[in-house]
Amino acid sequence: MAEVSEVVAAVDVGGTRIKAALVTASYETLAEVTRATPKDITADIGAVVHATVTDLLAAAAQGDRPVRVVGCGVVVPGLVDEARGVGMFSVNLGWRDLPIRYPVASLLGVPTVVGHDVRAGLLAEIRLGAAHGARHALFLPVGTGIAAALLLDGAVVSADGRAGELGHLLIDPAGPPCACGAVGCLEVIASAAAIEREYAARTGLAAGAEQVAVRAAGGDPDAIAVWARAVAALAQAIAATVTITGVDLVLIGGGLAESGAALLDPLREEVGSRLTFQRPPRLERAALGVRAGCLGAACLAWDAR
Amino acid sequence: MAEVSEVVAAVDVGGTRIKAALVTASYETLAEVTRATPKDITADIGAVVHATVTDLLAAAAQGDRPVRVVGCGVVVPGLVDEARGVGMFSVNLGWRDLPIRYPVASLLGVPTVVGHDVRAGLLAEIRLGAAHGARHALFLPVGTGIAAALLLDGAVVSADGRAGELGHLLIDPAGPPCACGAVGCLEVIASAAAIEREYAARTGLAAGAEQVAVRAAGGDPDAIAVWARAVAALAQAIAATVTITGVDLVLIGGGLAESGAALLDPLREEVGSRLTFQRPPRLERAALGVRAGCLGAACLAWDAR
Repeated sequence: MAEVSEVVAAVDVGGTRIKAALVTASYETLAEVTRATPKDITADIGAVVHATVTDLLAAAAQGDRPVRVVGCGVVVPGLVDEARGVGMFSVNLGWRDLPIRYPVASLLGVPTVVGHDVRAGLLAEIRLGAAHGARHALFLPVGTGIAAALLLDGAVVSADGRAGELGHLLIDPAGPPCACGAVGCLEVIASAAAIEREYAARTGLAAGAEQVAVRAAGGDPDAIAVWARAVAALAQAIAATVTITGVDLVLIGGGLAESGAALLDPLREEVGSRLTFQRPPRLERAALGVRAGCLGAACLAWDAR
Repeated sequence: MAEVSEVVAAVDVGGTRIKAALVTASYETLAEVTRATPKDITADIGAVVHATVTDLLAAAAQGDRPVRVVGCGVVVPGLVDEARGVGMFSVNLGWRDLPIRYPVASLLGVPTVVGHDVRAGLLAEIRLGAAHGARHALFLPVGTGIAAALLLDGAVVSADGRAGELGHLLIDPAGPPCACGAVGCLEVIASAAAIEREYAARTGLAAGAEQVAVRAAGGDPDAIAVWARAVAALAQAIAATVTITGVDLVLIGGGLAESGAALLDPLREEVGSRLTFQRPPRLERAALGVRAGCLGAACLAWDAR
C-alpha cells in the first residue's frame, strides 16, 4: 500500500475563476482543478471552497498516491485582514467584511489561513519562481485588473493589507474614468481589459490584449498606439515605484505577460528612459504564471503548520 | 564630584551645515554645536568630525556634568552603505565612495556607525517624536532638496540605501530641469529652493519659501500660484506613495514645515481629493524639526552599543 502523502488544499478565488490544488510540503502538485467562480460566492464561501476541495480529492483518487489534507490556504483579491481571516473589501467579488477562515475551517476541519492573492503570489515567486534569492522586488500581475506586491529588505510588505495598489496610481489626469472613482488610473490604461476596450473603441474590432500586441508588431497603427500607451503607463508606474521604494527587480505576471518580448522589450526601454541616478531594475516575466496565487496559498498553508 | 555621564557624539553632516550633539542613552542633549560644512569636507571627513566633537566637548565642559563619549553616529545625505560605513554618492556634498566610519572611528577612538540623514531622522521621529507608535509612515523633510524615508510594517525601509527618493518622482513632464538629469521632478517644483526660485522668476523679488506662504495668505497672486503648485505637487507625490505602499501617516519636516497650517491645511485637502478607496493618511508636522537627523544619529550610535 502506497504511503499517504500529506498535502494542503490551496485555493485561489478570483473574480472569474477559482484555481485550486493539493500541494505537498515540497510544493509538488498532486491534483489541480479550475472552476468558474459562482456568482453568489459571498452567500456561502465555505461551501464553495468545500466543494472545490471535494473535487480535488476526487481528482487525487484517480492517481496512485493516497493523500491526507492537513491544512488549507485560501487567497482572495482586494483588501484582506490576514489575522482575522476576513475579506475586507473586493470590487470584483462584491464583498465587504466577509469571514472566510471560519466557514472554511469549520467545513474542512483543518487549520485554514487566508491571504491576499498577489502578495501570496509574490511569496510563491520568491520561494519557487523568478524572485528566488531577491531582497527587493515588485511583483506586477497585469490582467483584467492590476494589483501589485512589494518585497523590501527581504519582507513582503502588507501595511495592513493596503500596500501594492499600483493599479490605482494616477497616470493621466485626462484619462478614462476608473471604477475606483478617480480618472486615469494605471488600470484603465494598461490592464489587458483596458487595452482590449481601447482597441475596440478605435477600430470597432474585438481583439484580446495579446492579439493587439501581435497586430502592433504587424504594423496596425491603432494597435501600435494602444500598445505604446499601455507600455508607457506601465513604465511610468514602475519608475515611480523604483524611485519611491528602491526595488531592483520587477516581475510582470498575469495575462499581459503572455506577450513576452513584445511587452518586456519596449517596457525595459521605457523604464530605463525614465530613470536617471536610480538603480535600474531587472525586469523579467514572472515564472509561475496563473499558478502563482494558488502556489502562494500553499506556501501560506504550509507556513502556518 | 559629579558622576560621569556616558554620551554618544551625534553628527548630522548636511550640504550647508553640520549639526552635532552629545546625547545620553535617555536622549538628553548635553551639548550642541552647529557649524558651516567646510567646502573641502571630502578631503578629510575624519578631521572635520573630530574637530566638531572637540567643540562639543568644550561646550560640555562649560556645564556641570562631566561626560565620556562612548560612541559616535554620523549621518549624511545621498546613498549610504551603512554596513561598510561609506558615503556612496551625494550630489550636494560632491562625494562618491567616501569612507566615513573608518577615518572617524580612528580619530575618535570609539565605535562609529554611519547612516542616512532622513532614515535616521525617521528613526528619531519614531522613538522620540511624531511617529511614536506608528507601524507605517512616510517622513518627508522638504528643504533645499526633498528626500523621504518609509516605515512599513514596523521597519524602516532601506533597499540598499535606495528607498525614499521621492524628490525625484516625476510630477510634470513639462516642468523645469532637475540636477538629476530628468525634468519636472518633485524637488524642482515643491522644495523650498524651488518655491523661492519660481517666485523670483515671476516677480523679480527675493523671498524665502516661508515668506511666499505669508504673501500667498495676504492675497499676492504670484505667491498664491507658486504656493498652490508646490502643494499640488507634494499632494500628488504623497498620494502616489500612499497608493503604492499603504502608509497611513505622513510627517512633513524640513524648512517648509515651518509654514505650519499654511502648508498642512491645503495639503491635507489636496491629498484627500486624490484618494478614493485608499486609506487616507494622517498628515502632520514632524516633531523634531532640524534636530531629527542629529537625534537619529544618536539613535544609531546607541543601538550599535
